[in-house]
Amino acid sequence: MPRNRRIVLVSRPTGKASVENFRLEAVETPPLADGQLLVRNHWLSLDPYMRGRMNEGRSYAAPQALNETMQGQTTGVVVESRNSSWPVGTSILAGFGWQEYGVSDGSGLRKIDTTRIALSAYLGAVGMPGVTAWYGLNRIIVPRAGETVVVSAASGAVGMIVGQLAKRAGARAVGIAGGPQKCRFVVQDIGMDDCVDYKSGNLATQLKVACPKGIDGYFENVGGAVLDAVLPRMNAAGRIALCGLIAGFNGAPIPISNPIWLLSSRLKLQGFIVSEHFDLWPQALEELGAGVASGAIRYRESVVQGLENAPEAFLGVLEGRNFGKQLVKLVD
Amino acid sequence: MPRNRRIVLVSRPTGKASVENFRLEAVETPPLADGQLLVRNHWLSLDPYMRGRMNEGRSYAAPQALNETMQGQTTGVVVESRNSSWPVGTSILAGFGWQEYGVSDGSGLRKIDTTRIALSAYLGAVGMPGVTAWYGLNRIIVPRAGETVVVSAASGAVGMIVGQLAKRAGARAVGIAGGPQKCRFVVQDIGMDDCVDYKSGNLATQLKVACPKGIDGYFENVGGAVLDAVLPRMNAAGRIALCGLIAGFNGAPIPISNPIWLLSSRLKLQGFIVSEHFDLWPQALEELGAGVASGAIRYRESVVQGLENAPEAFLGVLEGRNFGKQLVKLVD
Repeated sequence: MPRNRRIVLVSRPTGKASVENFRLEAVETPPLADGQLLVRNHWLSLDPYMRGRMNEGRSYAAPQALNETMQGQTTGVVVESRNSSWPVGTSILAGFGWQEYGVSDGSGLRKIDTTRIALSAYLGAVGMPGVTAWYGLNRIIVPRAGETVVVSAASGAVGMIVGQLAKRAGARAVGIAGGPQKCRFVVQDIGMDDCVDYKSGNLATQLKVACPKGIDGYFENVGGAVLDAVLPRMNAAGRIALCGLIAGFNGAPIPISNPIWLLSSRLKLQGFIVSEHFDLWPQALEELGAGVASGAIRYRESVVQGLENAPEAFLGVLEGRNFGKQLVKLVD
Repeated sequence: MPRNRRIVLVSRPTGKASVENFRLEAVETPPLADGQLLVRNHWLSLDPYMRGRMNEGRSYAAPQALNETMQGQTTGVVVESRNSSWPVGTSILAGFGWQEYGVSDGSGLRKIDTTRIALSAYLGAVGMPGVTAWYGLNRIIVPRAGETVVVSAASGAVGMIVGQLAKRAGARAVGIAGGPQKCRFVVQDIGMDDCVDYKSGNLATQLKVACPKGIDGYFENVGGAVLDAVLPRMNAAGRIALCGLIAGFNGAPIPISNPIWLLSSRLKLQGFIVSEHFDLWPQALEELGAGVASGAIRYRESVVQGLENAPEAFLGVLEGRNFGKQLVKLVD
């Protein structure tokens, strides 16, 4: 059996997370029992929600246990099998976490078809981030043709799908992203109508220009100053899908400065977590999969090579240093 | 024709409103034209939303014009009439504002039946505040039997109805009010299960004790520190009806300190204004009217005598000095 490498959480951050919170370990892989299979993980997904799990205490996800393998979604290929349902060579979506190999009896695994959709995309556009975009947009914002939908972290794994689905629904789609390069990508490659660079100053004025008819739906991944700038631009009866508050993940909570807008514009703000809506995943994945397979839905990935670089890449996600869906490639 | 007295807005407050923003005037009442009627206003309703209208700029209500009669709802009786549809003696619900008399051609007036419901109650439990409670509770919170519903400003015009409707729906109803006297009223007279005194310190601990199973629905009239204390106690998938943010009305906006709870507990927060839902008023008023007429729904009023005392009483509402629905009695 191959030697496995994994990353465990060794301490909980106080304030900002750092590489010191993680440790890389080499461990033996036990021989397979009857019914088990061994998967070589090719891709590890890094997602902002993982930061929440590093804390102790109540959140929507149970805390990540100390000295255990960091949890996370992976795709890979069966390399040894004592289970005839999962032959060697089968492509797999799993939650093996931050490690190079995974052993399973098949429970919790999903076979995936890589003939028209890449192995990595099942962690992004045709995976949890894609369904997150789909749910928040179609079940909370519910855009009507001609409305304006704004999405923050617009070049990220979720944001870029939100923008494309909003366009498909006939809405004007406006992204918020950090820096001219990301903004160019959002408009030119992803096809949103406009993009506001929150790093270039005066977000409020930029939003006003980009959204001349106000904002009807807002897909929030960020919080903080970005949310504060969006609220006054929301139209009456606007909807806010609250998907992430990454601005406050790495330290002190960031308030909503002026909640009166929620009242005066009669806004609906709805927090959600996509794993509570598994009933809708088949419908969402079918739509996303068809779009990706045909090329109608596009995506961008940010790839780091090697498990040992996962912690640094993850910290980059929390600071917006990634550009597109952040993945770790676990094979050469 | 009688001499009329009215109160006009003479200046917009910068920060805290004061009696200096108002002026009492005596004006002549013009003779009635054909089709017109003269109403002697008996009751004037004072409501927190009026503070928003004193400001300039975008809000859910158009700003109150300067040097015009302060807007507001009134009940009264027709004292002269040149309109056969509105004979002398008819009891009337109207929006004549802060004045002793009103002239109308009948448009915008509603006849009300005072045989089983008092003239004043049409401005409270069987009026806008009652429907506000009904809408927020039944259309946003939608309490299920056994759930816990919390309402702030629980002894106020809206809050006391929210608590009673929540009890009727089979929920545990917990009020938040200022001071032992109001809390006693909320439990003993209104019949809520418990009441937390926000003035007695440590709101968070008190809420934990009063809501041992957490909070499923929150009817918010206040905002600020009260909302901050409630959010961490909300159960997953809880609903917040955002009706008022009176804590921030009189000066600087008060932030929501830690919005992560909206996300981590997947809360729905919905701002609303009852005048946008006139389609539901008949249903709500029928239920409220039947409850008040039979004595099943109770209410308390805080009455000041004389139009000249309206500004001071209104400022009291903004600071929570009223106890129950605040009214001005305009007749001796």
